[in-house]
Amino acid sequence: MKKNEKKAVVVLSGGLDSATCMGIAEKEGYMLHAITFDYGQRHSREVEQAKKIAAHYQVHDHRIVNIEFFKEIGGSALTDEHIDVPKKMNQDAIPATYVPARNLIFLSCAAAYAEVIKAEAIYTGVSGVDYSGYPDCRPEFIDSLNHTIRLATKRNIEGKKTNIYTPLINLSKADTVTLGLRLHVPYELTTSCYNGEEYACGECDSCTLRLKGFKEAGCKDPIPYKNTQVI
Amino acid sequence: MKKNEKKAVVVLSGGLDSATCMGIAEKEGYMLHAITFDYGQRHSREVEQAKKIAAHYQVHDHRIVNIEFFKEIGGSALTDEHIDVPKKMNQDAIPATYVPARNLIFLSCAAAYAEVIKAEAIYTGVSGVDYSGYPDCRPEFIDSLNHTIRLATKRNIEGKKTNIYTPLINLSKADTVTLGLRLHVPYELTTSCYNGEEYACGECDSCTLRLKGFKEAGCKDPIPYKNTQVI
Repeated sequence: MKKNEKKAVVVLSGGLDSATCMGIAEKEGYMLHAITFDYGQRHSREVEQAKKIAAHYQVHDHRIVNIEFFKEIGGSALTDEHIDVPKKMNQDAIPATYVPARNLIFLSCAAAYAEVIKAEAIYTGVSGVDYSGYPDCRPEFIDSLNHTIRLATKRNIEGKKTNIYTPLINLSKADTVTLGLRLHVPYELTTSCYNGEEYACGECDSCTLRLKGFKEAGCKDPIPYKNTQVI
Repeated sequence: MKKNEKKAVVVLSGGLDSATCMGIAEKEGYMLHAITFDYGQRHSREVEQAKKIAAHYQVHDHRIVNIEFFKEIGGSALTDEHIDVPKKMNQDAIPATYVPARNLIFLSCAAAYAEVIKAEAIYTGVSGVDYSGYPDCRPEFIDSLNHTIRLATKRNIEGKKTNIYTPLINLSKADTVTLGLRLHVPYELTTSCYNGEEYACGECDSCTLRLKGFKEAGCKDPIPYKNTQVI
């Protein structure tokens, strides 16, 4: 445990972006707290990798929050087995992998946790650049939620602000990777593939974006892929 | 199941206010859907009474959402056994029964559910009048959250608005009781006491407010109290 009293809650999914946020929050000197959501994703690999990333950063506390709710209400290819995960993305539409109000719920829980531990910062790796199909990844959503959280919580009424930081929101995946490598983010511990297997498929939307990011950043992705030809 | 296609999600706690919201939403002609949160309250009586109220209104669907998270993070007398529930309220302070970001999380989940079932209305029984100590019961919080939800969800981007309605926000408890009795709300099925026993204590903040409301409305509260002298 570090002596620094400045605390941050990092929303840690186990993916590349949230791991980069851990690196950024560490560099900013925060005492790190991680919050991971187990929301009935099709695979539990994300949560397992999040634990490894949290351990790497020696976080002060790591909360794994079970939100079965998402699976119960369905409505997304990520949580409803009746909806297929698309192989290729359609840039004009909101993707089938959109989970209703996911970031709103995740960040609301992070705000509750931040209130209890008296954290002044919440970090989330949302990006509005490479993949803008998700409504809850846009800067205007984050700005509005910051305002709402300030009105909703005791801490803020007492004059101590909690702020959501989105350091990647204007970065391409390549920019994120470049920044993360400079911060020595352990990308080998991250997972992105929608299939959630040990070897990434290299073909789903998420793999495609990740591989493009590493390629444009001029480095090799350290995780293993099923088909090495895709890299 | 009613044929009306206009759908509403009512946040149903099992208390007097949310039951009144059920009566209001029914009168407005909505196909009723209820969502109840089991969040590690000290007693499960609230959830049981919510089930009875939902059955009374023959709701199309009733979701009981388990959010153990609140108990895990603590920080409230309602979810943390190390913090006492106060006997008497202090009008100047945020009460110990405040649960961090509770309404923000509840309403975010309600918004996700509304998105999946295509509901245009969310009803919540928050009131800013009798008991204004909770930051997340204020009109400015609800207005801001409505804006945030519109930015966060697919449904709203597609031009179909979902709106949070707070019909009791400017009503005193007496006004609420008067309105509810006119709508034949089954108050005998509701529970308010923080102790959550079959017989209400009649002394905690919540009982005090409830009894005052019925008294000012000029009617007898139909639920049983431990000490009949308090009524």
